[in-house]
Amino acid sequence: MPELRRDVTRSEWVIVAPERAMRPLDFVQADSSNREEPSDGNCPFCAGNEHQTPPEILRIPNKGQWAVRVFPNKFPALQAQDGDDVEKPGSLYGAMCASGAHEVIVESPNHLATLADLTVAQITCVIDAYISRFAALSEDPRHSYIQLFKNHGKRAGASLRHPHSQVIALPVIPPAVGQRLDNARAYYDRTGHCLICNLLQEEFKAGARVVGENRGFAVWAPYASRFPFELVICPKEHAHDLTRMTAVQRKLLSCSLSDAMRRIQMVLGDVPYNLILNAAPTDSLVSANPENWKTLHKSFHWTFSVLPRLTYMAGLEWGAGIHINPMAPEQAAEALRKAHVT
Amino acid sequence: MPELRRDVTRSEWVIVAPERAMRPLDFVQADSSNREEPSDGNCPFCAGNEHQTPPEILRIPNKGQWAVRVFPNKFPALQAQDGDDVEKPGSLYGAMCASGAHEVIVESPNHLATLADLTVAQITCVIDAYISRFAALSEDPRHSYIQLFKNHGKRAGASLRHPHSQVIALPVIPPAVGQRLDNARAYYDRTGHCLICNLLQEEFKAGARVVGENRGFAVWAPYASRFPFELVICPKEHAHDLTRMTAVQRKLLSCSLSDAMRRIQMVLGDVPYNLILNAAPTDSLVSANPENWKTLHKSFHWTFSVLPRLTYMAGLEWGAGIHINPMAPEQAAEALRKAHVT
Repeated sequence: MPELRRDVTRSEWVIVAPERAMRPLDFVQADSSNREEPSDGNCPFCAGNEHQTPPEILRIPNKGQWAVRVFPNKFPALQAQDGDDVEKPGSLYGAMCASGAHEVIVESPNHLATLADLTVAQITCVIDAYISRFAALSEDPRHSYIQLFKNHGKRAGASLRHPHSQVIALPVIPPAVGQRLDNARAYYDRTGHCLICNLLQEEFKAGARVVGENRGFAVWAPYASRFPFELVICPKEHAHDLTRMTAVQRKLLSCSLSDAMRRIQMVLGDVPYNLILNAAPTDSLVSANPENWKTLHKSFHWTFSVLPRLTYMAGLEWGAGIHINPMAPEQAAEALRKAHVT
Repeated sequence: MPELRRDVTRSEWVIVAPERAMRPLDFVQADSSNREEPSDGNCPFCAGNEHQTPPEILRIPNKGQWAVRVFPNKFPALQAQDGDDVEKPGSLYGAMCASGAHEVIVESPNHLATLADLTVAQITCVIDAYISRFAALSEDPRHSYIQLFKNHGKRAGASLRHPHSQVIALPVIPPAVGQRLDNARAYYDRTGHCLICNLLQEEFKAGARVVGENRGFAVWAPYASRFPFELVICPKEHAHDLTRMTAVQRKLLSCSLSDAMRRIQMVLGDVPYNLILNAAPTDSLVSANPENWKTLHKSFHWTFSVLPRLTYMAGLEWGAGIHINPMAPEQAAEALRKAHVT
């Protein structure tokens, strides 16, 4: 029978209706996208075409070449600018001067590589770039929230095949982020514990939704998964600030991410997905009220979400904000656990 | 320059970044989907195949045939069932027995018709069916919210080409709906006015985002449109309950909806879209507190949203809940106003 499940981190309902689909195999290569589309030599992210991108912000070198490059997005959603918040209290037309930043993180010189194809060492370079840019953008007092994400495949919003992530610095705390923070804070106030730490405990006690773990990180399919094969990856120890990760922790995160992406590719093929970081707002904003920051420090736990995009957003999602997931996360986790990863 | 705009009805931010795209022509037939795909004779929604659907709930006849049919969804996201709410206060795993209903409203016996192709008289039959099912499902005390919607085109979540809408009755008020109600209520408490009534006034004063109007209904592109060519259609006079529409008002709504869909088809071709009703929660729930109902009556104004699906949801949308819209709604409204509708 379909079940209505509530996600405690986002305060959202999801309908898990496995009767509407589908065994794991039904999702396989639902969109094999442009897996084999070679570069025509004009990809601006390919080695040799570095002059086609805006000037580099960061380069992680590798044997005379580069492993990862970061530069501003040529078509930024937001960019640094001076101007005023024109929102007036009670106004029907709130607008802000959209000051921010929008950068591209190229994950490999190899045009066709997926995250699942990269070595752990290469993924560690990507994670290093993530953290470096996250830290740098957090320091600008105009930035309130840093959204780091990766779109893979056209259906997930990627306009270029070459593997890359993006980071957008925003001048506001988005309401969706505020809701997650409020939920974490309310849980902490009520119980004295971090919500994600307790979720993690419960998940490992139950076991059915766990996909894997290593010394530092855990991977599981959330109870109220919005999408088939949705995963959460997060540090097993409480951690509110990803920039504090040690080198060892970064490598463990890379192992965990690599393993998760390999399992997905093994079970589903080269599917479109979004990888998103759920981080805390920047220090600069929260430090205006040290008491808030202290609680955030204890109540907030950063995570990555992997959102395979095998289903389409439709009327119920837009009207009511309720996703219909045709695959139970317990079933997805089982299929991913069983995948034979080389 | 990109602009961050706030939607007052949903409390959400949108980045309007027309620099990233695109003139209206860039969107034309971005997805001409399955426009010309004929029925292979096996479509369960076609005339002659009525025996392939679950038993009819409603039929609107037309010259010995039918104009509109309604029946339960064969693969329901929710269905009537007895069972308990298993959510416990403070529990990490809130779940409910997902009692509800899920019905299909076939809008025409013609397999290939789009809303833009139907006559106003035929669309009036569809609206009559909407209202009839909305009213009937609202009476069941287990239903808290009725979501009526139409998915057109694969990318908008339609699994069948034959024109149809759907209605899902939910046992909860979805958080996204609660947010809209709270915003309307807060605005009413502050100003003594309906938020949508005032928005409508402001839109007609400004003019730039208005697409059209008739005696009863107005159509405009919302200030913080999430999607290129997003539209709102709503009654010009305050109205909290769509079931109270007179026959004349239903016809005026049909004219308005027909005109909007023809303009979209004229400018963009047969694009995928979602049509969603933004309605108030059911009486049965709100009547538990007559004082609340009285305010809802004054503060809530029902609307339809038309959401063309020409862009893809990506990392910023999932992580921060912020849409990037590559087309200013003023530009979309101008293109739609200028469309020569026959």
